[in-house]
Amino acid sequence: METQTKKIKEIDLEKPILIEGLPGVGHIGKLATEHLIDELGAEKYAEIYSPHLPPQVLIDEDNKTNLVRIELYYVEHENNNFIFVVGDHQSTDNVGHFEIVKEILETVEENDVERIFTIGGFATGEMVDSPEIYGAVNDVSLIDELKEVDVEFDEEKPEGGIVGASGLLLGLSERKGIKAACLMGETSGYIVDPVSAQLILRKLSKLLEFEIDLQELEDRAEEIEDLAQKIKQKKQAQQQGQAPQPSGEDLRYIG
Amino acid sequence: METQTKKIKEIDLEKPILIEGLPGVGHIGKLATEHLIDELGAEKYAEIYSPHLPPQVLIDEDNKTNLVRIELYYVEHENNNFIFVVGDHQSTDNVGHFEIVKEILETVEENDVERIFTIGGFATGEMVDSPEIYGAVNDVSLIDELKEVDVEFDEEKPEGGIVGASGLLLGLSERKGIKAACLMGETSGYIVDPVSAQLILRKLSKLLEFEIDLQELEDRAEEIEDLAQKIKQKKQAQQQGQAPQPSGEDLRYIG
Amino acid sequence: METQTKKIKEIDLEKPILIEGLPGVGHIGKLATEHLIDELGAEKYAEIYSPHLPPQVLIDEDNKTNLVRIELYYVEHENNNFIFVVGDHQSTDNVGHFEIVKEILETVEENDVERIFTIGGFATGEMVDSPEIYGAVNDVSLIDELKEVDVEFDEEKPEGGIVGASGLLLGLSERKGIKAACLMGETSGYIVDPVSAQLILRKLSKLLEFEIDLQELEDRAEEIEDLAQKIKQKKQAQQQGQAPQPSGEDLRYIG
Amino acid sequence: METQTKKIKEIDLEKPILIEGLPGVGHIGKLATEHLIDELGAEKYAEIYSPHLPPQVLIDEDNKTNLVRIELYYVEHENNNFIFVVGDHQSTDNVGHFEIVKEILETVEENDVERIFTIGGFATGEMVDSPEIYGAVNDVSLIDELKEVDVEFDEEKPEGGIVGASGLLLGLSERKGIKAACLMGETSGYIVDPVSAQLILRKLSKLLEFEIDLQELEDRAEEIEDLAQKIKQKKQAQQQGQAPQPSGEDLRYIG
Repeated sequence: METQTKKIKEIDLEKPILIEGLPGVGHIGKLATEHLIDELGAEKYAEIYSPHLPPQVLIDEDNKTNLVRIELYYVEHENNNFIFVVGDHQSTDNVGHFEIVKEILETVEENDVERIFTIGGFATGEMVDSPEIYGAVNDVSLIDELKEVDVEFDEEKPEGGIVGASGLLLGLSERKGIKAACLMGETSGYIVDPVSAQLILRKLSKLLEFEIDLQELEDRAEEIEDLAQKIKQKKQAQQQGQAPQPSGEDLRYIG
Repeated sequence: METQTKKIKEIDLEKPILIEGLPGVGHIGKLATEHLIDELGAEKYAEIYSPHLPPQVLIDEDNKTNLVRIELYYVEHENNNFIFVVGDHQSTDNVGHFEIVKEILETVEENDVERIFTIGGFATGEMVDSPEIYGAVNDVSLIDELKEVDVEFDEEKPEGGIVGASGLLLGLSERKGIKAACLMGETSGYIVDPVSAQLILRKLSKLLEFEIDLQELEDRAEEIEDLAQKIKQKKQAQQQGQAPQPSGEDLRYIG
Repeated sequence: METQTKKIKEIDLEKPILIEGLPGVGHIGKLATEHLIDELGAEKYAEIYSPHLPPQVLIDEDNKTNLVRIELYYVEHENNNFIFVVGDHQSTDNVGHFEIVKEILETVEENDVERIFTIGGFATGEMVDSPEIYGAVNDVSLIDELKEVDVEFDEEKPEGGIVGASGLLLGLSERKGIKAACLMGETSGYIVDPVSAQLILRKLSKLLEFEIDLQELEDRAEEIEDLAQKIKQKKQAQQQGQAPQPSGEDLRYIG
Repeated sequence: METQTKKIKEIDLEKPILIEGLPGVGHIGKLATEHLIDELGAEKYAEIYSPHLPPQVLIDEDNKTNLVRIELYYVEHENNNFIFVVGDHQSTDNVGHFEIVKEILETVEENDVERIFTIGGFATGEMVDSPEIYGAVNDVSLIDELKEVDVEFDEEKPEGGIVGASGLLLGLSERKGIKAACLMGETSGYIVDPVSAQLILRKLSKLLEFEIDLQELEDRAEEIEDLAQKIKQKKQAQQQGQAPQPSGEDLRYIG
């Protein structure tokens, strides 16, 4: 089986902006992009299947199985047209990352993509009170406009570069002449992080001129905040000799 | 070497039902499907070889070596024709799972398969007194008939989806328009589980209208029950300061 | 780069017997086959290169580097002609084992191989005073002649089958109609084992009617015996509170 | 995506000497070769991309991302022409090493390479006060000239052979009739080692008749020396009950 795209619908979008949010550190990209899909009412138009994705099916709310895949959504919005790339998994092997990103770029090639934004997180290893959003670009002409919405640039953040689809999309689109940026939120690396996801969406909404309701992410951020407090208290309790187990409800938030 | 099928016999089956039982959690699928092959008197008609199976030979009761392979059996039964898929191993790598399942589907394609049932287990992490049988389907129209034989549906069971051949057969057959279901028995995950295998066969025999003698699986289930008791007692003995080692005979049951 | 054979010399051998001794448990096959090459004066005629062998060069006694490879030797002997397969490594990945064994069989195909013997060890996990030699065959007609030279047959030895080239050569040659046997010496699994290697050569010399001087292997076996004694004594010494470190000289014997 | 070369500039070099310094033990090859590129003023003329390199982009000092790649530089120098092979990563899988080295050799094939030097380190596991430089060659005719510049030869150094691009370049160029040597500096294996890098460059400058300023590497060697002293002192301090953490500045030196 080869990596392949199943088109659900032919679309004819003028110069769309592609936003990628596959799973990664803190699931920031996934949270942000799925929220955008919901809020902007984007519609699925293609699925990418690959033997480099995990060999498994997931079960949906109708008890129906779905082969693990990457999904492409689109929406024609006021000021910009969008394509969104989401999914539950990335490639399980290194070579597969190249195959899958190449397939994404070939699938959207006919739509003459104007700009790519990939969204990720980078782990600081400790709780971050007010996370910064860092950027990296495959074309330096993008830096100024990103700085205007307070995206930070620091060549050592993240020091090891950007791994996986969020990085490769910049690397491989550069060779096709598409300008692309990656926005990365600081995050502990231990839990799903709606705070950073929300901050990145605020920057994107300014930059790309769309309005978006962030209430749902704010609610999740508060829940996470409560959870972090609870964990802290339990830890202190444990250190004092008590040892309550985290409940199933709590663990739901762990990536 | 490519993944390939060696046909031992050409068969001409009308609209068979395919039942898959490759090794997995609790070896439930393997136990159930091998039991069906024995009881219904199915005959081997094809072998699938693949470089994605382990690079080894197994030794049979005649001291003859056999390259690790997947075997296809068939039987024309009163109310239904069957193809069974069994073997001692699954793919050793992720991409190989796709290759092997694709090869299985291509091999049976000429027989115009009517329906696929894959059998698996999902690990609860602790001994289960009366295991439930959960189902997942690649077509929601199958749910009602499965509920009639008391198959449970719960989108969170198993939460991580279905991994390996039992999952991929649903995912890849969906794209060929074949309706398929996976039946999964709850099991500890620590030992071979004839209890769940037996329960799944009872449901299949009602659903697919065949009679089957389950005595052998019941006997094995009782042995396992005895073994579980012994392990429990030994554990208690050990906690009281004695430390008998599990005998070779006991370990035979461990997957 | 593909797996490929570099012929050093064209040979025209009548119905040779192929003996394989690639590295494995206790290096029994390697020791035995390299000894045969030396004693029978076999000559190298081909080298197999593969990207599935480790990506490295080894340094020989002339300080010259050699790409890791598998080597084929041949000799025309009184009662039988021989091809020997040796090397310093096996495949680094599962799929590669199939590629390499396929390449070996294709390289020797023109010589119309009469019979294949692969040599291995199987680990018992503890020191074995008088190791048995077990056999496995890809054609049951070979069993009687092997029993005549006291090769044991037991379908549960080794229980997990035969892994790597020694196993696959039986599996893949079967499909070409070549009869093949694997001889396996019991061994601890912790050290290089010239004792088992020697025992297997005694059986092969009877079976295939060649005379061979085993003095060198006997000498190494005595060294190993001495080493085992020393380790035992050191262990006892350590348990009594003294803790001498194994010397570099001792470690030389460890696989 | 296949392994491929992007030519930035067509070059027409007469019988160049190729020097490879991809990352490895102590980053000796990388340090030495990058220093040569700077000091001799070599110019980049080609980039090699491969799905066997890590699936990631690195961020440069302009905050621009660059797909991980291997870079080829060239310079026409007084007495010799040079091609340099550098990069931030080697292959992530075994088969990929073969692909990438094959690609390097094919890219430079048109330039009729005269000689190859690969640079590496081998780990001794402890701090080395005055490291020796060992050599290995794919053609014994090279040994004498290397001994003249005090390169040591010892078939057991390194015992396990040479792994990765530095080894494979010797192995695969041998088959193309190109003479090649690997120079390896003794190093602890724990830190980046400019001392060994410097020693190797001294030998190469004599051998290949070029003048080179080594001040920068000497400065770095002194910094490392200071660092090693500090670590030693801290260790002693820790053993005396104090436990200062290594500062970010210190860690910068760790590979």
